[in-house]
Amino acid sequence: MFQSFEVTARPEQGPPRLKALRAEIGRAGLDGFLVPRADAHQGEYVAPRDDRLAWLTGFTGSAGFCAALRDVAGVFIDGRYRTQVKAQVAKDFTPVPWPEVSLADWLKDQLPQGGEVGFDPWLHTPGQLASIEDGLRGSGITLRAVENLVDRVWPDQPAAPMGKVQAHPMEHAGESHAAKRARLAEGLRAAGHRAALITLPDSHNWLLNIRGQDIPRNPVAHGFAVLRDDGRVDLFMAAAKLAEVEAHLGEEVTQRDPEALPDYLQALEGPVRVEQQSVPVALADLLGERAVWGEDPCALPKACKNAAEIAGAAAAHLRDGAAVVELLAWLDAQPPGSVTETQVVRHLEALRRRDPALRDISFETIAGTGPNGAIMHYRVTEETDSVLQDGHLLVLDSGGQYLDGTTDITRTVAIGTPGAEARAAFTRVLSGMIAMSRLRWPQGLAGRDIEMLGRLPLWMAGQDFDHGLGHGVGAYLSVHEGPQRLSRMSHVPLQPGMILSNEPGYYREGVFGIRIENLLVVQEAAALPGGDAHRKMLEWRSLTYVPIDRRLIDLPGLSPEARDWLNSYHRDVAEKIGPRVSQAAKLWLDAATAPL
Amino acid sequence: MFQSFEVTARPEQGPPRLKALRAEIGRAGLDGFLVPRADAHQGEYVAPRDDRLAWLTGFTGSAGFCAALRDVAGVFIDGRYRTQVKAQVAKDFTPVPWPEVSLADWLKDQLPQGGEVGFDPWLHTPGQLASIEDGLRGSGITLRAVENLVDRVWPDQPAAPMGKVQAHPMEHAGESHAAKRARLAEGLRAAGHRAALITLPDSHNWLLNIRGQDIPRNPVAHGFAVLRDDGRVDLFMAAAKLAEVEAHLGEEVTQRDPEALPDYLQALEGPVRVEQQSVPVALADLLGERAVWGEDPCALPKACKNAAEIAGAAAAHLRDGAAVVELLAWLDAQPPGSVTETQVVRHLEALRRRDPALRDISFETIAGTGPNGAIMHYRVTEETDSVLQDGHLLVLDSGGQYLDGTTDITRTVAIGTPGAEARAAFTRVLSGMIAMSRLRWPQGLAGRDIEMLGRLPLWMAGQDFDHGLGHGVGAYLSVHEGPQRLSRMSHVPLQPGMILSNEPGYYREGVFGIRIENLLVVQEAAALPGGDAHRKMLEWRSLTYVPIDRRLIDLPGLSPEARDWLNSYHRDVAEKIGPRVSQAAKLWLDAATAPL
Repeated sequence: MFQSFEVTARPEQGPPRLKALRAEIGRAGLDGFLVPRADAHQGEYVAPRDDRLAWLTGFTGSAGFCAALRDVAGVFIDGRYRTQVKAQVAKDFTPVPWPEVSLADWLKDQLPQGGEVGFDPWLHTPGQLASIEDGLRGSGITLRAVENLVDRVWPDQPAAPMGKVQAHPMEHAGESHAAKRARLAEGLRAAGHRAALITLPDSHNWLLNIRGQDIPRNPVAHGFAVLRDDGRVDLFMAAAKLAEVEAHLGEEVTQRDPEALPDYLQALEGPVRVEQQSVPVALADLLGERAVWGEDPCALPKACKNAAEIAGAAAAHLRDGAAVVELLAWLDAQPPGSVTETQVVRHLEALRRRDPALRDISFETIAGTGPNGAIMHYRVTEETDSVLQDGHLLVLDSGGQYLDGTTDITRTVAIGTPGAEARAAFTRVLSGMIAMSRLRWPQGLAGRDIEMLGRLPLWMAGQDFDHGLGHGVGAYLSVHEGPQRLSRMSHVPLQPGMILSNEPGYYREGVFGIRIENLLVVQEAAALPGGDAHRKMLEWRSLTYVPIDRRLIDLPGLSPEARDWLNSYHRDVAEKIGPRVSQAAKLWLDAATAPL
Repeated sequence: MFQSFEVTARPEQGPPRLKALRAEIGRAGLDGFLVPRADAHQGEYVAPRDDRLAWLTGFTGSAGFCAALRDVAGVFIDGRYRTQVKAQVAKDFTPVPWPEVSLADWLKDQLPQGGEVGFDPWLHTPGQLASIEDGLRGSGITLRAVENLVDRVWPDQPAAPMGKVQAHPMEHAGESHAAKRARLAEGLRAAGHRAALITLPDSHNWLLNIRGQDIPRNPVAHGFAVLRDDGRVDLFMAAAKLAEVEAHLGEEVTQRDPEALPDYLQALEGPVRVEQQSVPVALADLLGERAVWGEDPCALPKACKNAAEIAGAAAAHLRDGAAVVELLAWLDAQPPGSVTETQVVRHLEALRRRDPALRDISFETIAGTGPNGAIMHYRVTEETDSVLQDGHLLVLDSGGQYLDGTTDITRTVAIGTPGAEARAAFTRVLSGMIAMSRLRWPQGLAGRDIEMLGRLPLWMAGQDFDHGLGHGVGAYLSVHEGPQRLSRMSHVPLQPGMILSNEPGYYREGVFGIRIENLLVVQEAAALPGGDAHRKMLEWRSLTYVPIDRRLIDLPGLSPEARDWLNSYHRDVAEKIGPRVSQAAKLWLDAATAPL
């Protein structure tokens, strides 16, 4: 079992750890120390040794940070975690609503007389630092880079992960790492950059066609890489991890010890491209004037999947869809009141594990029934585990890491007889999800330019939801991948080959939650008769094929076009998934995909 | 008659003027000189003395510039003017597609050996300059501020305008200039700025509740103003223009001679807020280190109209709507083939002029029939004047400057029997226009976040149009007002009181054009039953009330909601405009607003 239902947050452990940290803060002559959630690679998941925020405070959310001062310790969390933080941290910690309250403003309130706050330069980026220091201007408060003070007081801190690295085969990668390196080096030369420092593991793992097992849920190997303008790569990663891929990496990729990176960077000829929002301050400082801010050269090429990656994703989604259909068929056969959330999660994982290509789940399955469905990032534990009751909606958001692709799907399922309000809201969410799926749009637009379409039916009813419509997804890589997003934060034009989720939702706190999610890939749209001949347009192709619960649809609330789309989608689901499931599931599938 | 149909562009005048300019360029030891369209106030309309681009090149579009070098003279124009520029400039001038080709790249091509290009520092902003110099980096080409060389060779250059300034009455302004000054001064103090330099005439005219007549179509008085952090204003404007408003301006507003501005700025205590995108380089340079980039403090308060301004706009639109309805009724009574575009423009202006509150038209009326309708910024002249033929669509885009408000309306009218393709496209344009009119959206969104809705029906048919969906409109001020826009360029959140146009279109080159435009004002939306109680949402209220041509609608192409909206809108039109028009127009109006 990949997923655990253990309660990992124990509030009572926090206060003594905080006390020990404060002693170190005093010894360092500081007034405080910043404890971010991120590691040196700014990823969403961190290895146990890097989970300092949870170790110190008890808070286990995937975003946030602690500012531990001598008298007060603020835990900064966004809207998704307001409720969770209260249950997870002791009263010695003060939850701070963020980004409504900025770190700088909070520090100015707490340290009116000025002061010095320490930070670990490996865990912050120049972009973050500049924005904090901008906010502190004129306050007399300064930041000082120091050794990590949490590590000093964490006696049993786990060791750095040493997961074995595997080659990602050409069959799935679709392009050799030699070809990728040559292509990107050309971009460096055109920009006049001698090298690029690549700090994001999914970037250099993509570049070198390798995958790792250093952190849960994300098949990446931690390390740093430097791409030279002649296409050679220096890979700073423990040799032991790379034992099986020496031949794969070849002569143009040189393994180097991670400890050698600082000296190497000090000697590296510039200009060196680094990404301001993801490079550790420690490394940017070593480069000094030779650093040029720029995009990670892997980001965009990685986001635009090639034919092999898209074929792999499509194949993985069909197998994954079959597992989800088996789960839904099984669930429908259980009477309301007889199954709990953890049972659903266990059964779904067991079904996915039948596939030999499954390497992990792509994130902790969210299975929230009734009121739990309204908690957007609900992680079921032994303590919260709830029974699926008649009248509940179950929000089931899950995915797998397969050798050929990463999946992520959400379905909302009626348990017994759903209420009218929930059906009305479900129909709006579905209308938005379908409108986005059907969209054709002119080339050049970003997620921000089209995201509203997935929200429109909710807006017209005075409703909305507080998360983005969709995120990028990697090719057997991170399930949350940039720079493409269906979000108001995203100004990167959508391009053919990008994979994104389309997942509108609706959440009524304490009552029910709804989310419907398919993964889509951007492709060029064929010209339409009567359309503008000179205008290049894009459209989506669906990767996910799993029925959408017909019992939750108010038919008069769907436009004729949306209904046609759904019937056609369900025809495709039946055709593609039917041959892949058990007899019982096939019977269920036929009913679930019957035309409306 | 405000509008003229004269052909103002005479290509043959350009070459000798260019020759004279080149002599000056040579005398100044330069390799070229930049001739922008803008004056020192960066507005859309310029006084005749500032119309240097048209004088030199013959090109009369409202955007563009000339880079006159010793051997070549590029006229940079955007997509709207590709056809027009060819007819207006002599072959000594080379049209350059812009922004596809940047000035910097073009200069690098033309001056491979480096060189020095002159510019008038009053006509360019630091923002523009920085972007040009950024592009020139490494080329050896530099820019040098010089006296305006066009002025030296323009013997009969008109004098600066000296239009009399009038007070804008409280009844229409809704807030005294003392209250506005106090409000904005508080903002300056909060930001730690000692003063703000205000260079945009509509900004200081709004601030001081004055209106002028220095340029056509725009009721503003040219000048510069400095708002001090105690609320006092120094107004740099010829005393003769201000004779009638001395008492209105009072003791806290001091008239100063425009010539005194440089010395005054040199002595002004900083920090002084200036807007990087609109301040002349000449003035920014005088302030030097004391200049702080920031928003024009008038921009946002001016955009958010108060109750009196909204009431004024609504009243002006009803009177304007009655004039347009008279025109449409008259037009429908003329047989196809019997009326020309200029006759339509003349008749419409005559109808508007019946209103004693009309001060000007708000822009040159666009009346394009058949293929002329596909030219987005068509200005009819004696040479292009065309007969409205059976089967044509007429695009009629016009507006008035009334003492109580500025109007801008477009209707597309069938002449005789329209074709199927035109009706299908019209129905799509209308569907988009209605969807935007009906929209409710959460507070905090900008034009960019919602603009797609007006394009969606076209996109789904493989079509689109190449202008923004809408622009801000002033209160008896500029018909194109920022910062609010329904455009992908606009990141400013929409706020209650902002007036914007909603004007989707479709243009089939050489065949027909379509545009439908209403002005809308943003207002808070009342909560809906079942909606999210905590969510503040916004909606539009229509200002424009004129029928939309029912003969151009394919009824099956409208959603039931759109049809309901249109019937309800037409009911409102009949009710509000019916009592204001002649008997004949009333009969026409009843038929034109009958339910579909």
